[in-house]
This record gives sequence, structure tokens and C-alpha cells, in this order.
Amino acid sequence: MTSPAYLDSPFLRACRRETVAHTPIWFMRQAGRYMPEYRAIKERATFLEMCRTPDLAVEVTLQPIRALGVDAAILFSDILITLAAMGVTVDFNPGPHIPDPIRTRAQVDALRTPKPEESVPFVLEALRRLRKELPAHIPLIGFCGAPWTLACYATEGGGGKEPVRMKRLCYEDPTTAALLLDKLTDMNAAYLVAQIEAGAQAVQIFDTWAQLLHVADYDRWALPYVERMIKKVREATAAHSPAPVIIYFARESGALLPHVAHATADVVSVDWRVPLDTARRVLGGAIALQGNLDPWALFAPWDELRRHADEVLVRAGNQPGHIFNLGHGILQETPVDNVRRLVEYVHERTAAR
Amino acid sequence: MTSPAYLDSPFLRACRRETVAHTPIWFMRQAGRYMPEYRAIKERATFLEMCRTPDLAVEVTLQPIRALGVDAAILFSDILITLAAMGVTVDFNPGPHIPDPIRTRAQVDALRTPKPEESVPFVLEALRRLRKELPAHIPLIGFCGAPWTLACYATEGGGGKEPVRMKRLCYEDPTTAALLLDKLTDMNAAYLVAQIEAGAQAVQIFDTWAQLLHVADYDRWALPYVERMIKKVREATAAHSPAPVIIYFARESGALLPHVAHATADVVSVDWRVPLDTARRVLGGAIALQGNLDPWALFAPWDELRRHADEVLVRAGNQPGHIFNLGHGILQETPVDNVRRLVEYVHERTAAR
Repeated sequence: MTSPAYLDSPFLRACRRETVAHTPIWFMRQAGRYMPEYRAIKERATFLEMCRTPDLAVEVTLQPIRALGVDAAILFSDILITLAAMGVTVDFNPGPHIPDPIRTRAQVDALRTPKPEESVPFVLEALRRLRKELPAHIPLIGFCGAPWTLACYATEGGGGKEPVRMKRLCYEDPTTAALLLDKLTDMNAAYLVAQIEAGAQAVQIFDTWAQLLHVADYDRWALPYVERMIKKVREATAAHSPAPVIIYFARESGALLPHVAHATADVVSVDWRVPLDTARRVLGGAIALQGNLDPWALFAPWDELRRHADEVLVRAGNQPGHIFNLGHGILQETPVDNVRRLVEYVHERTAAR
Repeated sequence: MTSPAYLDSPFLRACRRETVAHTPIWFMRQAGRYMPEYRAIKERATFLEMCRTPDLAVEVTLQPIRALGVDAAILFSDILITLAAMGVTVDFNPGPHIPDPIRTRAQVDALRTPKPEESVPFVLEALRRLRKELPAHIPLIGFCGAPWTLACYATEGGGGKEPVRMKRLCYEDPTTAALLLDKLTDMNAAYLVAQIEAGAQAVQIFDTWAQLLHVADYDRWALPYVERMIKKVREATAAHSPAPVIIYFARESGALLPHVAHATADVVSVDWRVPLDTARRVLGGAIALQGNLDPWALFAPWDELRRHADEVLVRAGNQPGHIFNLGHGILQETPVDNVRRLVEYVHERTAAR
């Protein structure tokens, strides 16, 4: 019996720091409003309906695979899906909105940590169908939010501004803050395991709001929970061979980077502000790097965009262990043609090496 | 004739990396809504009226000197005052709003660079009066926005979200972007010189939106203009002895720090996310450091706040050239008692050394 082609794909090989035929490329939020195919579906369903209806989630996940030629598929969903499963009301209008944010010990106590199979079956169903419908050579990525980042959303309530309530909770009531983070860790570790069992070969943990923290607070309130989550996922999926890949994305600008290595992820996804050669030097050679084009470079004329892409490739260096991506999610008005052309360019330029 | 006491103040001595009797402390946005005295004035005047009425600007600048015991006064004003002077309509409701943002070459061409004495006489009048009314041992700080940051506001129009238009202008029409930055540099360099002549012993350049840029873009679109601004200010104020102090605050998280040194400021004000010992190592010993308590730590119970303050002091090290401050502006709902207590604590703890 031969193993599935996706296990030997450039994306998974690069995550394992093996040699590749070309540098793999995908985009955070590669399914989204910048694509006409996506907007056509969005017209007849809300964002949450799209997340919760396997037919729609599968279709939208496949769109960028067909249209862009990227090297990996990432499940169409949202990190707040698990918050909703824990009993928190979550709306999108269009940004996330939590009408009754978590502020008290009683609210934290009331949070449930239900089994993913029972609370988010639609996600697992979408992953199972995606693994069947995707081309055999395309790996599938699942994801969740990091405990710190989810806690920021849960306590803030949304509104688009920088969330600030979680920091206050940490300072004023550290016991409640830790309990909230514990529950989020348990729920989301189980969620990642379920995603892997349902068909994901890699999972990415999004820590968007790590950028709010200074180093000492990151070491206390963010890092240990990510570390514990990763440990749980590795233990629960120890029978898989090759082991599922774990990617950690901490949106920040360099100060936290030496600490990010301790999260023990296989791949660190780097914010666009930290040059990849700096990241390589700080993180060492045992971690693959993902990133890190400035999402705004995709709005530039091609010559300028190519210059930015070259800068990323040169700083990544001519060595295994680089997955080309953005330094943050793709933006709404991004011109699709630039995205497609960038995928081709990265493939062609790195195949020549 | 003896020189004024403020020239030998802990603040200016620390900026010059001389020994001090205690570590000086002041706060970015130390005059603001968290103070009841400020809110009393705000009830009868809009923010812009306060900036443009010397009586009110002077009064509000003096409030934190009386109430908190800080070591320096900073003019009450806003970095967008010079944009308004250049012909851009600027409102505050309460965040900055620019109804007709700069997007075209014609708009940039139409921007004026009038003499500060003619276009912002109220600022210079406030500074002259402040220098007379302030206690003789309290130095006075003026300020302006960095060209990149002002360009971000001018092109975006406001709204509270991350400004993104300026990056697009840089990529799509670099000539117009550079012309806009040139004009902002000229206008604000002249503005700083006028502030120094009117009575400021130090000036701070705020580069809040440096954090949007990756290193290569910072080196092209932000740093050269700050450098040129500082050069112009130094040349125009060469007759002053001691030389006026120039402080540069780039809100960012570490990736840009090695480049920030090239701005040639006397003092670098450090974002709360970069530990001061890291900043010291990266910037070298010839630059004084200002900062960098997390503004949210001021909401913590005293023991926790003291732990954060100790962390800043320990990382600053037992050496000259540290001005205690926040890593960003003071927040609206900050408890005044914590601010006052922190000032006392920093003074007492560092006097014992």
C-alpha cells in the first residue's frame, strides 16, 4: 500500500525541513471576500452559516485551491467556533461580536468544554469530506485560536479595537484569568486532535493578540498554555506516522520571538515585521519558518510586489524549512491576479534552485 | 548669572546620560481625561479649542505637574495641529477625523508649509507662558508627529482602525508619497525649532505608526525623514547651550529597533513590548532610554503594579540615561492614585541607590 501523495507534498516536506521541488506557498485567510467565487456564496449565507454548513465550508475551502494553485488547503472556519461551543454567544457583523463578554468568575465557571464530536460536528464533517474531495497531493490544514487570543476576544466583546479587558482580568483577578485560559486550552487541544483525526495533516494555532503582551506577561499568560496545548495534541496523536505538523503564529514584532521557540511547534509563522533571517537566527535551525510577505505588498504593481517577494525568499535563505505565506491574513480588497501571479512566481523562482 | 534650574533637572540630566539624584518620570499623555481637573475643562471646550487657546493649553499642561509630581511638563497639544496648519481639515470626535484625506498628487501639491509663527502662534504663546509659569526646576517638552505617522493620518482619514492607505500610496505612487513626506518633514522640523525657541528644552517626535512597517519599508519611508528632521532641528538650534534634547518614539516591537538608532535622537522612547535591557543592548550606550511600563499595568492592584515598575527599573539597569515613562500613552480610565503612587515609588526607590 502506498502512502497518500499529500504526505510527500512540498508543504509537509518543508514543515519537516526536508528538501522540496519548490518552495510551497499558501495564504492565511486564502478563502475570503477578495475572491468573486467566495462573494457569490456569501450572498446567500452568513459567515457563521458558512462555517456551520459542511457543503459551504468545503466549497469555500476548495475555491483557492482551484483558483490560485496554492500548495495547501486550510479549513474555512473561525477561531471563535470553539468559544461558541463552550456556551458563549458569538455574532459576526461583520467583525466578531460577543454581546455578553466574560468578565466574572461565575461566567468562567459556567463555560463548558464539550467533546468536539458533539459540539462542532460540522467542522469534523467538513474536514472528512475535504480530505476526500481535495486533490491527492494537497495537504489539509486545520486550526484554532491560542488560549490567550481567545481569552482576549471572550473578555472584550469585540468592536474592532485592541482588546484590553483580558490584561485587566490577569492583573486584577489572576485566578479567574488562569481558569479561563485552562478551559480554553483543554477545549482547543481536544479540538485540534479531533481535526487531525478527521483528516488534517497540519494544524495552525493563531495567537493574534500576543502582540499586546510584554515578554514577562507573554511568559506567564500566553506561552505556557500554548505549550500545554501542543503537548496534549502530540500525546493524543502519537500513533500518527508521520506525526501531524503543528504551526504557531504569534502576531508580534520580534520582542517575543526568542520565547516563541519554547512553544515547541514544528513551524513558526512569522509576522511580516520580522525579517526571516532574523527569525532564523533567533529561533535556530530546528524550527521551520512560514511567512512573511507584508499583506499590503499584494496591492502593489507587479514589479514592486516581486521585489517584496524576492526579499522574503532571499531572507529565507537557500535551505529547507520555508513555507511562503503572508505575515498576516490576506486583505479584503486584494487583487486576485496578484495573488495568482505571486504563487506562480514563487514556484518558478524556487524550482530553479 | 546662574543658569535656570531646569537645565540641571533630573529629566534633562538623564537625557544627557548624566548622573541623577533619582530616576526622572513623566507620562506620555499625562494631561488627559483620566484626571478630574482635565474633565472639568473639557466640559466647556472641545479638544481643538483646548489646543488652540493658550489659557486652556497652559492650564491643562500644568495640571499633572501639580497633581502627580512628575519631573517634566509636556505641552498639551496634538500632532495633527501641523496638518491643520498645512491646509488639511482635522476634526476630533473624539478620535481624529480627516473628512477629505490626501490621496492625490494635486492634494499634496496644494499643501502649504507656512511659518509656525504665523500658522500655529497659539502653540508658541502657550510654550512661552508655560516656561514662565512652570516651577523653575521643571523642564518643558514640546513635540510633533514623525512624517510617516502624520502621512498615515493624512491619507487614511481616521476612523480608529490601522491606517493602511499610506502604504498603498508608497507602493502605487512613490513620487507622490515622497513629496508628501518631504512637506511634512519641512513643516514639522520648523515647528520643533519654533517650539524650542519659544521655551521647550526637549522635543519628542512621535512615530506611532512605525509599527505598520517592515524593516525595508521603515528604512525607505520613515527613517530618512526623521533623520532629516532631526538634522534640521540641530542645525537651526546650534546656538543653544546645552543643546535641546531630541526624543524619538517609534511604536513598534523590536524588529525595527536596530534601525531606530540611526535616527540620531538623544533619547529613544521604547514601546512597552521591548525589554529595556534588550533595547540597551541593541541601541548601545550612547543613547538614553525612555520608558517603558505597560500602560495597562496602571490598572493593576498596587503590588502587581509595583512588580511591573520594578521589572522596568531592573531592566533599565543601575546606570545613567533612563527616564521612566510608559511604553505608550496613558489610558483614559487610569486610576489617578496609581499614577501618583508610581511617581513617588520611582523617586524613592531610585534615590536610595
